[in-house]
Amino acid sequence: MPAVRVAMAQINPTVGDLSGNSAKILDFAKHAQESGAQIVLFPELALTGYPIEDLALSRDFLSASEAALEDLAKAADEAGLGKMTLVVGYPGFAENPTSWAIGANKAALITGGKISGNYAKHHLPNYSVFDEYRVFVPGRNLLTFESNGMKFATVICEDIWQSGGPVAQISASKVDLTLVLNGSPFETSKTDSRLELVQSLAKAQGTAVAYVNLVGGQDDLVFDGNSFVVDISGKGIIRARQFSEDLCVFDIESQSKIAPVSKTAEPLKPHQQIWEALVLGLKDYVAKNGFKSVVLGLSGGIDSAVCASLAVDALGASNVFGVGMPSEYSSEHSLTDARELAQNTGLIYSEQPIEAMVDSAMGQLNLDGLAAENLQARIRALILMGLSNQNGHLVLTTGNKSELAVGYSTIYGDSVGGFAPIKDVEKSLVWALAKHRNEMAAIAGETPPIPESSITKAPSAELRPGQTDQDSLPDYAVLDQILELHIEQRLSASEITSKGFDGALVDSVLKLVKNSEWKRRQGAIGPRITKLAFGRERRMPISNGWS
Amino acid sequence: MPAVRVAMAQINPTVGDLSGNSAKILDFAKHAQESGAQIVLFPELALTGYPIEDLALSRDFLSASEAALEDLAKAADEAGLGKMTLVVGYPGFAENPTSWAIGANKAALITGGKISGNYAKHHLPNYSVFDEYRVFVPGRNLLTFESNGMKFATVICEDIWQSGGPVAQISASKVDLTLVLNGSPFETSKTDSRLELVQSLAKAQGTAVAYVNLVGGQDDLVFDGNSFVVDISGKGIIRARQFSEDLCVFDIESQSKIAPVSKTAEPLKPHQQIWEALVLGLKDYVAKNGFKSVVLGLSGGIDSAVCASLAVDALGASNVFGVGMPSEYSSEHSLTDARELAQNTGLIYSEQPIEAMVDSAMGQLNLDGLAAENLQARIRALILMGLSNQNGHLVLTTGNKSELAVGYSTIYGDSVGGFAPIKDVEKSLVWALAKHRNEMAAIAGETPPIPESSITKAPSAELRPGQTDQDSLPDYAVLDQILELHIEQRLSASEITSKGFDGALVDSVLKLVKNSEWKRRQGAIGPRITKLAFGRERRMPISNGWS
Repeated sequence: MPAVRVAMAQINPTVGDLSGNSAKILDFAKHAQESGAQIVLFPELALTGYPIEDLALSRDFLSASEAALEDLAKAADEAGLGKMTLVVGYPGFAENPTSWAIGANKAALITGGKISGNYAKHHLPNYSVFDEYRVFVPGRNLLTFESNGMKFATVICEDIWQSGGPVAQISASKVDLTLVLNGSPFETSKTDSRLELVQSLAKAQGTAVAYVNLVGGQDDLVFDGNSFVVDISGKGIIRARQFSEDLCVFDIESQSKIAPVSKTAEPLKPHQQIWEALVLGLKDYVAKNGFKSVVLGLSGGIDSAVCASLAVDALGASNVFGVGMPSEYSSEHSLTDARELAQNTGLIYSEQPIEAMVDSAMGQLNLDGLAAENLQARIRALILMGLSNQNGHLVLTTGNKSELAVGYSTIYGDSVGGFAPIKDVEKSLVWALAKHRNEMAAIAGETPPIPESSITKAPSAELRPGQTDQDSLPDYAVLDQILELHIEQRLSASEITSKGFDGALVDSVLKLVKNSEWKRRQGAIGPRITKLAFGRERRMPISNGWS
Repeated sequence: MPAVRVAMAQINPTVGDLSGNSAKILDFAKHAQESGAQIVLFPELALTGYPIEDLALSRDFLSASEAALEDLAKAADEAGLGKMTLVVGYPGFAENPTSWAIGANKAALITGGKISGNYAKHHLPNYSVFDEYRVFVPGRNLLTFESNGMKFATVICEDIWQSGGPVAQISASKVDLTLVLNGSPFETSKTDSRLELVQSLAKAQGTAVAYVNLVGGQDDLVFDGNSFVVDISGKGIIRARQFSEDLCVFDIESQSKIAPVSKTAEPLKPHQQIWEALVLGLKDYVAKNGFKSVVLGLSGGIDSAVCASLAVDALGASNVFGVGMPSEYSSEHSLTDARELAQNTGLIYSEQPIEAMVDSAMGQLNLDGLAAENLQARIRALILMGLSNQNGHLVLTTGNKSELAVGYSTIYGDSVGGFAPIKDVEKSLVWALAKHRNEMAAIAGETPPIPESSITKAPSAELRPGQTDQDSLPDYAVLDQILELHIEQRLSASEITSKGFDGALVDSVLKLVKNSEWKRRQGAIGPRITKLAFGRERRMPISNGWS
């Protein structure tokens, strides 16, 4: 039997931009045809972007999606792609709407200018960051089709993560290649779990599997691409790039005879994956929200240095505006380190001392202690927001996950901003990423962006004389372990203490976490990289008597 | 047959406060016994408060809940309540946990110091403000029990709002009285829909029904109590008070022979219901988060006047700190109206002119237009947050639903605060509530709190000379209609235009709604009173190309 050539189009759609996404799909389908493919596979909800959240509850939006799909089918035919089969993820009306959800998360087969079949996702994830049981109605039936003498089946993402449902029918349907449309967000170490899952599926259902994933940033999620194919034995055949669009082409003759056509990619190393995820998350948030440039405060510290470096990688140095905002408590190195960062990266640097404004406010308000400390952070926010409003820059807020967890920040002060590039990066990892980025630069023969002093000096908010973070917090090495056990592993104080941490310390950390929930609720979004990020993934009451 | 006396304990628990809630349950059970009741019924998750959100994912929390229930059973027995049956809502471990959800939303029967039965909620609401399919595993079986020769069944809240499930077994089980444990949040006009639903249930399943609801504020939700009993014909027998704790006692001899024992209440009139909901939401947020006092800016406008008046009703005038913060653009009446409000209500008033701080910032930053306008609002935020940090007041932010919808506010400026008392109140309703509150005062022979001028003058942010809201927005009467159609009824631009509104105006309003999503995400929570409030009830992407 002659081989069937299949292309996986790993694309980066924009949520809600139906015409832009349609054009992109058509474009990739043309490239697929040029590469000789008879079938081209797009990711989950490729037509509308993913996740669409409550847009799925709008009749108008679902109608527009279905109309765009029809238009796409016609346009593909007119472009000479009529003989190809396009498998495209889109949201459409559900057959059995409820009183709330009216749509389904679907895949359509497009061929000869027509929609020749469709599939509705059966398992709707409603945990972690997902609310799909809220917005979609589940489908029930497997979709299979034949092409060039081979049999294909189509399922969507979560369908392969849960047992039962249409996936259980694959074996009985004698499917050669199962096409899985995915919107699977990046998460540290997830590459391996996806592969293991798909390998089990291949073996259990007796099918080769093509797993195509979205790529790109959408609010707090980063889709890493990383699409791949395994044969019936679970052997990897070809893999697409991470964190960029790609067209991944292969020939299949049988479940066990599959050959790569396009170039395969290797997964990146762990720190590089995280760095790229953060860069892509930031880049796409800026672009998809119509910004061109960002502004951020540069304190000379590690957090703002890493954020600035990410921004330069994402947007280019000429679109990154860094502002040094010294106070009477700022150390000399806070300015020299900020200036060195600017010099290393080429970002556009300016300085705005805050002393006059602080004096003016202090002259009128009778503040001391924490209230006076917070005032300084809020004057800095005033400056950054002024520059943002005046010049159209997006403000980046530079807090890390450890700070966010314990509320070690000034609300309406350093927490101000539209996007928080490292909000899901614990402090220990911030340092590791800084070192990693500098090493990459050294290897490439470029200037390491982050000043050595920003990496090595003791972290401080510099809101009072001689202050360091460790006046208020345990060492970050300890704090980060406690937080990881509590946040990501959901352990209680007693469970954490039983692992050898000081009980009083654990109690105090967990109390800080609880008491800063209200601040987190008002915080900017930022890219998720861990298996449990703050935000929609951790929904805790603010009014909460549980300790 | 002798009548069975049943008490419905409409209580206000605090989420997570197991010992406080247990003590309250025991206290109400004692009162029930004193009134001669043999059965006392508590609302949904009475033991832990409701909703518990992701606390339900914590093993530690579920263990503590189960232990608290056992302790409660013992304590009730020791207090001489051993012969009573207590029906108590609590979260416990599910029989069939998933890889994510491990708990169930349960009701326990407590009698003779033991837990003699339990029920797990079957229909888990996962729409509107609810995420229960995320955090609970559904139960499958009806719980029935006999007491004094009569048969009772227990179900929980959503079980009666959906068809199928255990409720469908009530008729076959020949139940005399169905006990429904509820956590049903207040919503304008919901009183009627609950009654209609319970009446249908009574008729369809051939049972009398006792519907007991929580009361109190929990973050953005306000539970209104309003518990009631109907007989098999659907006739109302007794009703508990709204917006306060109550013990509602009745005698049942048969499905059709039920008599009130305690005093029945009448539902409040619509505007009074809303006012009481807002007062209770604010009062409980303050108390349950450990605050004693609030601070807010008083502009002389209607929004801050209504918020201040709500705060005075909730906390007493001596716990409400109002700050007039005039600028060079403030009208004379902005101060006179603020002062009059303070005088009318007795709140603690002070003034902090912003001009010096604005001048200091403007002298350093080169701002004009919107950036300069926003600066003024942010200086005011700086003052309020300074007073909050210095004195421990909770800051109230006074924006209304119309402003929030179209982004007519300064982020990190007038949006600053921990709680937003009127965030779900559209501008037209703000005026109506102000008039209502003044009328109530007049009827009671008290000074109407809200200055007449605040109600009648044209609304203005006063951030530039002669500014009014209608420079940027359509008349609120029109705007509020468009917003209601778009937000609460989910209509599209074309659907709204087809109702006779100007197409360009509708498009511009809907664009403002979309573009201010990022601001709303960072906004304070506030009490929900409509059938679709901003916040967890409307989950829209920020990066969103759909228009």
